[in-house]
Amino acid sequence: MALGKNRVRLQQAHTLRDIAGRFGGKVMGDPGTRVHRVATLENAPAGAIAFLANERYLPQLKSTRAAAVIVSEAASGATTLPRIVCDNPYAYFARVSVLLNPPTPARTGVHRTAVVDRSAALAAGVSVGPHAVIGPRVKVGAGSVIGAGCVVGEDAAIGAGTRLFPNVTVYHACVIGDRVTVHSGAVIGADGFGIALEGERWLKVPQIGRVIIGNDVEIGANTTIDRGAIDDTVIEDGVKLDNQIQVAHNVHIGAHTAIAACTGIAGSARIGRFCRIGGHSGIAGHITLADRVEISAHTIITRSLDQPGTYTGAYPFEPNAKWRRTAVSIRHLTELIERVRALEKKQSGPERSEP
Amino acid sequence: MALGKNRVRLQQAHTLRDIAGRFGGKVMGDPGTRVHRVATLENAPAGAIAFLANERYLPQLKSTRAAAVIVSEAASGATTLPRIVCDNPYAYFARVSVLLNPPTPARTGVHRTAVVDRSAALAAGVSVGPHAVIGPRVKVGAGSVIGAGCVVGEDAAIGAGTRLFPNVTVYHACVIGDRVTVHSGAVIGADGFGIALEGERWLKVPQIGRVIIGNDVEIGANTTIDRGAIDDTVIEDGVKLDNQIQVAHNVHIGAHTAIAACTGIAGSARIGRFCRIGGHSGIAGHITLADRVEISAHTIITRSLDQPGTYTGAYPFEPNAKWRRTAVSIRHLTELIERVRALEKKQSGPERSEP
Amino acid sequence: MALGKNRVRLQQAHTLRDIAGRFGGKVMGDPGTRVHRVATLENAPAGAIAFLANERYLPQLKSTRAAAVIVSEAASGATTLPRIVCDNPYAYFARVSVLLNPPTPARTGVHRTAVVDRSAALAAGVSVGPHAVIGPRVKVGAGSVIGAGCVVGEDAAIGAGTRLFPNVTVYHACVIGDRVTVHSGAVIGADGFGIALEGERWLKVPQIGRVIIGNDVEIGANTTIDRGAIDDTVIEDGVKLDNQIQVAHNVHIGAHTAIAACTGIAGSARIGRFCRIGGHSGIAGHITLADRVEISAHTIITRSLDQPGTYTGAYPFEPNAKWRRTAVSIRHLTELIERVRALEKKQSGPERSEP
Repeated sequence: MALGKNRVRLQQAHTLRDIAGRFGGKVMGDPGTRVHRVATLENAPAGAIAFLANERYLPQLKSTRAAAVIVSEAASGATTLPRIVCDNPYAYFARVSVLLNPPTPARTGVHRTAVVDRSAALAAGVSVGPHAVIGPRVKVGAGSVIGAGCVVGEDAAIGAGTRLFPNVTVYHACVIGDRVTVHSGAVIGADGFGIALEGERWLKVPQIGRVIIGNDVEIGANTTIDRGAIDDTVIEDGVKLDNQIQVAHNVHIGAHTAIAACTGIAGSARIGRFCRIGGHSGIAGHITLADRVEISAHTIITRSLDQPGTYTGAYPFEPNAKWRRTAVSIRHLTELIERVRALEKKQSGPERSEP
Repeated sequence: MALGKNRVRLQQAHTLRDIAGRFGGKVMGDPGTRVHRVATLENAPAGAIAFLANERYLPQLKSTRAAAVIVSEAASGATTLPRIVCDNPYAYFARVSVLLNPPTPARTGVHRTAVVDRSAALAAGVSVGPHAVIGPRVKVGAGSVIGAGCVVGEDAAIGAGTRLFPNVTVYHACVIGDRVTVHSGAVIGADGFGIALEGERWLKVPQIGRVIIGNDVEIGANTTIDRGAIDDTVIEDGVKLDNQIQVAHNVHIGAHTAIAACTGIAGSARIGRFCRIGGHSGIAGHITLADRVEISAHTIITRSLDQPGTYTGAYPFEPNAKWRRTAVSIRHLTELIERVRALEKKQSGPERSEP
Repeated sequence: MALGKNRVRLQQAHTLRDIAGRFGGKVMGDPGTRVHRVATLENAPAGAIAFLANERYLPQLKSTRAAAVIVSEAASGATTLPRIVCDNPYAYFARVSVLLNPPTPARTGVHRTAVVDRSAALAAGVSVGPHAVIGPRVKVGAGSVIGAGCVVGEDAAIGAGTRLFPNVTVYHACVIGDRVTVHSGAVIGADGFGIALEGERWLKVPQIGRVIIGNDVEIGANTTIDRGAIDDTVIEDGVKLDNQIQVAHNVHIGAHTAIAACTGIAGSARIGRFCRIGGHSGIAGHITLADRVEISAHTIITRSLDQPGTYTGAYPFEPNAKWRRTAVSIRHLTELIERVRALEKKQSGPERSEP
């Protein structure tokens, strides 16, 4: 297998002068230096621009073959390469990368194999891929891309400039905002897990709410967001969801919160704005998290948090043999506390009785 | 984005008299009160019927704008609204919601873009959506709905009144019962993780069992149920599985067990009937859980449980700084026990040596 | 529902002599014994060959109705059934099962409903299923099978003898090797979770790397493997991934490592060769695991491991009432250590002060 041959196509070159003209920052070294692609410091080929956002990669700054680098003021003296000095090298790099890697424009129009209901309303410049299915009364805003194999249920509404990658499913009546990205395999609006016990049988509770997704949201591959049981499930503007996240019915996620992969959010949980939630974590149902709460990876939050801060509950790992002993010790922890209490009592007892 | 505009269509109105005639319960207040939709107490619009199943929402009962409510005997005096008094308001509400939100009937017949093998047998009233694929010798029972983009492999059998939402995959030879709901992205019958080590290479063990799913089962979005290695994987009647659950090969789940999202069940585990398993939990392979076992969220069960009861193993979270100290303490827990033992020995030692 | 009726079709019979001729081992009993299917000891019907790989199933060896069994030298005296004696009965069984259950050959050729770009290059004997979509400049090697509803993005390359089961999505420019199996719902090459904070807004960092998958890899249902942020995400030869695994951008998984279901691997983690990782576990970002590391199920690894061995961090479960006390105790664990220290000080203090 010849690796590298099918590398994504190279882009037009830009000078550092041109880049700083667009995004600010100060050029040091030759402002006419041309770059045509971004790279890591470690693997930069000729003509690439790289960045340093973390001091531990400083050694790579010395050895990189990049044509130019993006650095902070503090690191600007650590290299003689042509460079752009700025406040936030990672964010600056993101902008440069967008410049050098513009998204491939999708072919506009409806593919001949797509099935679009005649009552659906597609705005200008919409692209509907092969075998996509657009149900009755669906609205799709200008310039949106519905990938191959996507299914959009009746009465759903999709904003402008939004992209559904292939094989996304959107259930009926759900609403997706503008400039939203949904990755493959995501399911928006499946029924929430609403079941009522009657005797020894489960009755299904119809899930009649919707999913409402704001603008500038990104939803990862195979993430599932359930429709509300009665009221709606709401994802506010700017929320970023990684892959394989489960959002249960009637969850509310505040604006600009970012959640890493494999996290599960139980029904009716309310998560604040600007929160950051680590991977594989869990939020219990019916609790509220304040704005700017940070949850570490593999942590389960079981009660409401009304203060910002970082909360953690990942159980520490050990070599297996030691873990076995620790696990047994944990099971006897309350007894250990009793034993310490007894010791304290005994020790203080004689002291108190001393003349 | 104008929210609420694409709300699911309103249904026909019913009087409380009519509802109680169907489902029992006692009407208090005007039995001619008409309701046409269900709602939460908090957000009920005019014409809605809401319910109170949890005492903590009692204050909302005072302020609701619902036209009528479903309450227990105990709460029947807490409002003057027209109401239906019954034993199990949540289950009653489920029935009323089904009445007011009948499932949208799918258009029967095979969509022109579906690919149905000529040897497949579709019963009366089956609906096959756009781009669905039905393989050789597949059987689909009366009134079942195969959603857009679903793929049903050769020799699979699907019962009557069953619904596969779009983009479900059913592998060859799997069997799904009657009145089953499978949500989008679910995969039924992929190969189990059967690999045998030979020297330093993994040999694949063919997975030749099937998945057998009983009647009245619900399977959530992106849930995966692997086919058996040799014998079958079995999901009994009435089991309810939430989203993103992984059921490994040769698992057996007893009737009417409900499992919340993101749970993983390892190979050959045998789960009893009427169990309830919380989200993000794990069941180890080759163990057996008795009937009526309840597992809390984020709990990993590593040995068989032969008694009903609730079992928990979620590690408690703390503010991050405190967690760091606790995590270190846990790693020294066995040493702490040694120290306590030494203290006990010393303390009892001198006592014993006292004259 | 008549179970068993749609059992996968029976295969041609083989004698033990024939089998030992192919795979080695010693035949005891009648070498002309014919077997036509594999089975478990417990459920073997007439004509089946079963195996014993675990001593705890020895009792089943006595009662099995199998026509023949595969056993180790140690167990060869425990039965009088016709048998093949070999070093590694489970691996031997895997080979026999492949012989008796050859994969159903897919119909070669491109289904009339598939959409294959005219610039795509399909080698001899390729099968493209109904409604599959193959983008521009895609290459597919000889004998590979692209299942129904799969979408393969532009410039992707798929090797020879590889099988994508239905509804797999492969993003643009990704590379998949020879003899790879990818199960339904898997998503290869979606964007990594690359976002940079600028003020209070998230900027998307274009994900321009690829996913590179070696030869003889298996990828489970609904598993997601993200494309690299800048450099590539790499899965080496012989890696086996179970269902619902999340592999973040720029992860590198060494050859012949096996990972069980529901595991999450964070960005830029580097996992060695011949590792075994249990289900529902997590590997933190930017860490390195040595070759031959084993991670137990439900364990989160938060720092690099440079030594082979087994590491565990699963929190032990208890009956709920006891768990509540333990959880409170854990939150007071650092205080308990202080109390023990105080006891030790007091106890040693007086001793030291004694004349």
